[in-house]
Amino acid sequence: MQHYFLSEPLGIGQTVSLPKDIAHRVSRVRRSKIDDELELVDQNHHVFLAKIVSLENKSVEVEIFAEQTRQVELQQEVTLLVGMPKKEKAEWIIQKGTELGATTFIFFNSRYAVAKLKADRLAKKLDRLNTIAKQAAEQSRRSIVPEVKVLDKLSDLELSEFDHTVVAYEEAAKQSEKSNLVKVFEQVQTSQKLLGVFGPEGGLAEEEVTTLVDQGATIAALGPRILRVETAPLYFLSTLSYQTELNH
Amino acid sequence: MQHYFLSEPLGIGQTVSLPKDIAHRVSRVRRSKIDDELELVDQNHHVFLAKIVSLENKSVEVEIFAEQTRQVELQQEVTLLVGMPKKEKAEWIIQKGTELGATTFIFFNSRYAVAKLKADRLAKKLDRLNTIAKQAAEQSRRSIVPEVKVLDKLSDLELSEFDHTVVAYEEAAKQSEKSNLVKVFEQVQTSQKLLGVFGPEGGLAEEEVTTLVDQGATIAALGPRILRVETAPLYFLSTLSYQTELNH
Repeated sequence: MQHYFLSEPLGIGQTVSLPKDIAHRVSRVRRSKIDDELELVDQNHHVFLAKIVSLENKSVEVEIFAEQTRQVELQQEVTLLVGMPKKEKAEWIIQKGTELGATTFIFFNSRYAVAKLKADRLAKKLDRLNTIAKQAAEQSRRSIVPEVKVLDKLSDLELSEFDHTVVAYEEAAKQSEKSNLVKVFEQVQTSQKLLGVFGPEGGLAEEEVTTLVDQGATIAALGPRILRVETAPLYFLSTLSYQTELNH
Repeated sequence: MQHYFLSEPLGIGQTVSLPKDIAHRVSRVRRSKIDDELELVDQNHHVFLAKIVSLENKSVEVEIFAEQTRQVELQQEVTLLVGMPKKEKAEWIIQKGTELGATTFIFFNSRYAVAKLKADRLAKKLDRLNTIAKQAAEQSRRSIVPEVKVLDKLSDLELSEFDHTVVAYEEAAKQSEKSNLVKVFEQVQTSQKLLGVFGPEGGLAEEEVTTLVDQGATIAALGPRILRVETAPLYFLSTLSYQTELNH
């Protein structure tokens, strides 16, 4: 089902004229017809079911007839902090991470990062990544659009903003550390803020890990296999879902 | 570290002349030098550390000096049965699924599959997919190379070969089914055979699900969000790892 984000409050029974860009996508790109149903998310992250009642050249009107109350968001606000990977991998992490429930993506200039964030191209790159997050949120029918940000240095981040921080560290996998991830996930409460930190292709530098641990982060292995930069965040989100959404 | 599969038994102290194709990759593609280390997996899935002792035009000799005993394989043999998705998605599932520990991939002609397996191109396609599995196994340093197969009809599969079968079914996610995946994973024993079944882009047909359930399969939701064909198998493998490798 088509799924769009509007920047206004909505309610059952309301008739809404869709913004131009969305109207274009509904009528021209998806070729919808009168009576077709779609989902609209309002500014308060409520999801409504609407039916097309009029459809002209550039304008589409829908009538809201129900609210979708199924909980589709993770119970925690999850931020993924990832050493800047190559372009396609960053886009993949956003797409799949959005599908799996992440709230925020922060890419940072890790010491061993292959791709560096260049100031002159940053604004454009960030725009593109945020567009990808929005498209992914529409496609996976989220009730929020995750935000994508960048961070110049790891030390610019206030870890105290988060209730739990987990650092996925390759060395932990090699040393067969087994249960730290489970320990953190078992402690996590509803509505808490969770940060997952992942190295770029080259891995995290030891001093980067130390900086995080000194601020209270937990080092954890994501199983005994060494996962690539674009796979580790998906393992993290999947297993958080398993622990908090399925296992109770 | 470079990681290659050999089709012979190996032992510590042995000097091995690498097969031509691997020698080429070591000397030309990776431009390795004398004393560089690499991992070799023998026909019995044992992983050895070796050091390059001679390196000429087309021949590379290595000496095996240690065995790598860290357990990198999942404790279960996991087969992913996936409705044939589009090409890039099939390749992605193999790459990431190999990284996350799958043993076998079977693609089948699901009723709603967008991509159909055509007999004339099948052999070539299968070759390509098996090559991808081998490359992924090298890159993620597995001790086995997963096998890729195809299946004409779902009914050609003997479910009795497997100790547990889980069907990831979108309708279960919509109905907020929560704990079946956990129930199965909690019962899974070491060395058992596990089958995960995933629909193609169009989802599984109801009669396909019924066929599986009649043979004892468990329907399970992979969290409340609807996952795409290439994401669901990764959720399945990640959470199996979490339950069986981390959570004990």
